[in-house]
Amino acid sequence: MIDHDQLIESLGQSGRAAARQLAHSTAEQRNGGLIAAAELIGQRQSELLSANQADLASADARGLAPAMVDRLRLDPDRLDAIADGLTSIAQLPDPIDRVLADWTQPNGLQIQRIAVPIGVIGVIYESRPNVTIDAAALCVKSGNAVILRGGSEAVNSNRALHEALSDGLEQAGLSAEAAQFVPTQDRDAVGALLRAHQSLDLVVPRGGKGLVKRVQDEARVPVLAHLDGNNHLYIDASADPEMAKNIVINAKMRRPGICGALETLLIDQAWSDNAPKLLTDLIESGCELRGDESICAMDSAINAAQPDDWDTEYLAPTLSIRLVEDSDDALDHIQRHGSGHTDGIIAEDTDAAQYFLARLDSAIAVHNASTQFADGGEFGFGAEIGIATGRLHARGPVGLEQLTTFQYRVMGSGQTRP
Amino acid sequence: MIDHDQLIESLGQSGRAAARQLAHSTAEQRNGGLIAAAELIGQRQSELLSANQADLASADARGLAPAMVDRLRLDPDRLDAIADGLTSIAQLPDPIDRVLADWTQPNGLQIQRIAVPIGVIGVIYESRPNVTIDAAALCVKSGNAVILRGGSEAVNSNRALHEALSDGLEQAGLSAEAAQFVPTQDRDAVGALLRAHQSLDLVVPRGGKGLVKRVQDEARVPVLAHLDGNNHLYIDASADPEMAKNIVINAKMRRPGICGALETLLIDQAWSDNAPKLLTDLIESGCELRGDESICAMDSAINAAQPDDWDTEYLAPTLSIRLVEDSDDALDHIQRHGSGHTDGIIAEDTDAAQYFLARLDSAIAVHNASTQFADGGEFGFGAEIGIATGRLHARGPVGLEQLTTFQYRVMGSGQTRP
Repeated sequence: MIDHDQLIESLGQSGRAAARQLAHSTAEQRNGGLIAAAELIGQRQSELLSANQADLASADARGLAPAMVDRLRLDPDRLDAIADGLTSIAQLPDPIDRVLADWTQPNGLQIQRIAVPIGVIGVIYESRPNVTIDAAALCVKSGNAVILRGGSEAVNSNRALHEALSDGLEQAGLSAEAAQFVPTQDRDAVGALLRAHQSLDLVVPRGGKGLVKRVQDEARVPVLAHLDGNNHLYIDASADPEMAKNIVINAKMRRPGICGALETLLIDQAWSDNAPKLLTDLIESGCELRGDESICAMDSAINAAQPDDWDTEYLAPTLSIRLVEDSDDALDHIQRHGSGHTDGIIAEDTDAAQYFLARLDSAIAVHNASTQFADGGEFGFGAEIGIATGRLHARGPVGLEQLTTFQYRVMGSGQTRP
Repeated sequence: MIDHDQLIESLGQSGRAAARQLAHSTAEQRNGGLIAAAELIGQRQSELLSANQADLASADARGLAPAMVDRLRLDPDRLDAIADGLTSIAQLPDPIDRVLADWTQPNGLQIQRIAVPIGVIGVIYESRPNVTIDAAALCVKSGNAVILRGGSEAVNSNRALHEALSDGLEQAGLSAEAAQFVPTQDRDAVGALLRAHQSLDLVVPRGGKGLVKRVQDEARVPVLAHLDGNNHLYIDASADPEMAKNIVINAKMRRPGICGALETLLIDQAWSDNAPKLLTDLIESGCELRGDESICAMDSAINAAQPDDWDTEYLAPTLSIRLVEDSDDALDHIQRHGSGHTDGIIAEDTDAAQYFLARLDSAIAVHNASTQFADGGEFGFGAEIGIATGRLHARGPVGLEQLTTFQYRVMGSGQTRP
C-alpha cells in the first residue's frame, strides 16, 4: 500500500529543488523548454493519439456521457492547438524579476520589491487533457514547479502529454521535475496533496463545482479558485435600452456555460417601461426566463422564479430576473446571492455607475460591458489558469503575474539601525 | 454553555456589515474616528489605569513572571504612547481606493485595479494591551472590520481600551462594530475564530511562538504571520572588515529579542583571516558565541555549536557561527535552516551580492545593512501589524497597504464579447 502523504512529500521535495533551479533559469531557457515541448507534441502525434485511444476505449467501456467523452478526445487539430498554446505562452512577457516598487529611505537604504515565483504549485484537474499542458506551461513560465494531478479518465493522455512537456524542459537544460505528474490514480493522493502545506505553496483546481468544493473544503494549502459564477447585471434607470439589450443578450447567450455568463438580471423599476421589449428580445434569443411577480406580469411566457433560482448558476440559456427599487436594493440582492465573481451595471449616468461599482464586493465590477469579458485573455493577460474569487493574493483572472509573489531587496552601504 | 462557533459567526456577521459601511466611509471619517479614540484614551486615563490595576492584581495573585507583568502594565506614559500611535496612524496616507493599475484594451474597455479593504480581520494577541489599539487602528484605517481576541491576563485593560476605540468610531459616525472584542475568555473561542473561514477573511496572530504555531496549525482562515526569524548574514570574501563588524554587532546586539535579530553568521573561508578580530569584537560586545570546529579553533572563549543551534532563534545575545566554503554553501545552509524571514550578505563585490540576494528564498533579502531593518517603520510603511513569511498576498512587513486587496473595474461603452 502506498503512503500518499509520503508520496506527495517526496514529489514536493523534488519540486522544491526544481523550483529553485527554475527561479534562476533565464527566460530564454524556460521559453525554450516550452517551445521544445510544443515540437515534441508535433513529433509524437501518433503516440499521443494512441494513448488517447486507450482512454477513449475505457471511457466507452465505462459508459461515460458523450459530453465527457468529447472533452477527453484528442485529434490532430486539438494537439496542434495545445502545441500552439505552448508557443504563445512562451512568447508572453517574462513575469519574474519585474521591479514592482523601488524607493530609497532617508538613511540611504534602497528598497526594491521584486517579482519572484511562488514555488511549488499543485494543479488538480478533470477530464480535459489539454490542462496538463496549459496549466503546467503557465506555472513553468512563471518559474514555478508544478505537480499535476489529472482525472483518472484521461490518465494515458495526460501521462503522454506530461512526458512531452518534461522532455522538452530537459532539452532546454531544465530539471524534468519542474513538471511532475502524480503517479497514482488513487483518490487519496488528492487528499494528501491538499494537506501538504509544507510541500506545496498553492493549489489550483481546474474543473467542475464538485472538484472545486472538495478542494476548498479540504485544502490546508492556499487555493486560488472560484466555486460559483452567479453573476448579476443591474439595469439602472439611466440605461440606454439598445445597449442594455445587446449587453444582456451577449452576457447570457454568447456562451451560457462559461463562468462569466450572466445568471440574474436586476431591473430598476424606473426603467420598467423598457423591460417588456427586452424580455421579448431575450425570449426570442432562445433564453428561458424566470421572473419575480412584477416581471412575470409583463409576459405570459415567463415562469415564476423559485427562491433557489436567485442562488443558481444555471450555466445554461436560463435567466432569473427581478425588478428592484433602486441601486441599493440591487446591491443588497447581489450581496445576499452573489458569488463575488463578476457583477455590473448598465447606466448612462456615470455617477450612478461609480456608486454601484464601488459598492460591489466582486472580483470584477463591470460598467456598460458584457460580463463575459471576465477572462484573462480579454484582460490582456495572454492566458489564464482560472478565475479567483478569494480575497487574498489574486482576485479575478489568474494569469502569469498572479502566479508570482515578491521579495524585498534591501541594499545598503553599511547602515546599522540606531 | 456558549456555542463558540455560533458566537464567532454572529460577530462575523456584524463585522461584515460594519466592513461594508467602513469600505465606503471617507478617509476623513475613519481618521476622525481614530483621533476621537485617541482623545477618549486621554480623557479616560484613570478608568483605563484602574482596569489595568485589576489585571495586575490578578497577575500578582497568579504569580505571573515579572517580564509578563511588565508587558501587561499600563501607566500614563504608555497610555500617551498608545494615543499618539492612533494619531500617527490617522495621519498616514489612505491605503484604499488607490488605482494600482489602469489600462485600455484594443476594444476600448478601460480596466482598473483598485485597492479595496480585505473585509473582516481577526487579531489574536497576547499580554500587551496596546495591541488592542495598534492592530485595530491599522485594520480600521484600511477599511477593514476587526475582531479582537486578546490574552485573558489583560482582559480588563483590553476591554476598556476597546471601548474607547469603538466609542471613538461611533463619534465619527462609524459603526461601533467596526472593532469588536470577543466577549469570552474561553480558549475554545480561539479555535472557533480559526475555523471561521466563512466569517473571517484573514487572521493575524500577534504574540509568542506558541500562539503563532497554534494559529498556523489550526487556522482554516488565511493567516499572515511568521513563526521564526532565524536570520542569517553571510560575510562574502569581498566584505569590508569594519562594515562587517558594525553590521553584525548591530544585527545581533542592538535588540537581540526582536524577530529581525541575527541568529547565525556564515563566514566565507576566504575571509577567515579577518574572522578572529570580529569574533573578539563580538565577545567584547557581550555576545555568547557558538561556533563550528574551525570557528572554535580561532578563540578559546567560543563554545562548540550543537546540531540544533543552527535551527535555534535565540532571541538573546547568543550567535551561532559557521565557516562556509563559498556563497553557494552559505545559501545551502540558509535553505536548510532558515525561516524565510530576513537574510543577507555583506560584500563589496556587487555581482556577488546580486547573485546571493536573488537566490535567497526569504521575504527580505539584505545587502550591506543590518537585519534589524526588517520592520514596517524602517521600510517607510508608517506602522506594521507584523511580519509575514508566507508566500502569498504579503511577505515581509505587513502595513496598511498589505491590509488591502483589489477589485478590477471594467468600464465600457456597450462592448459585447464577439
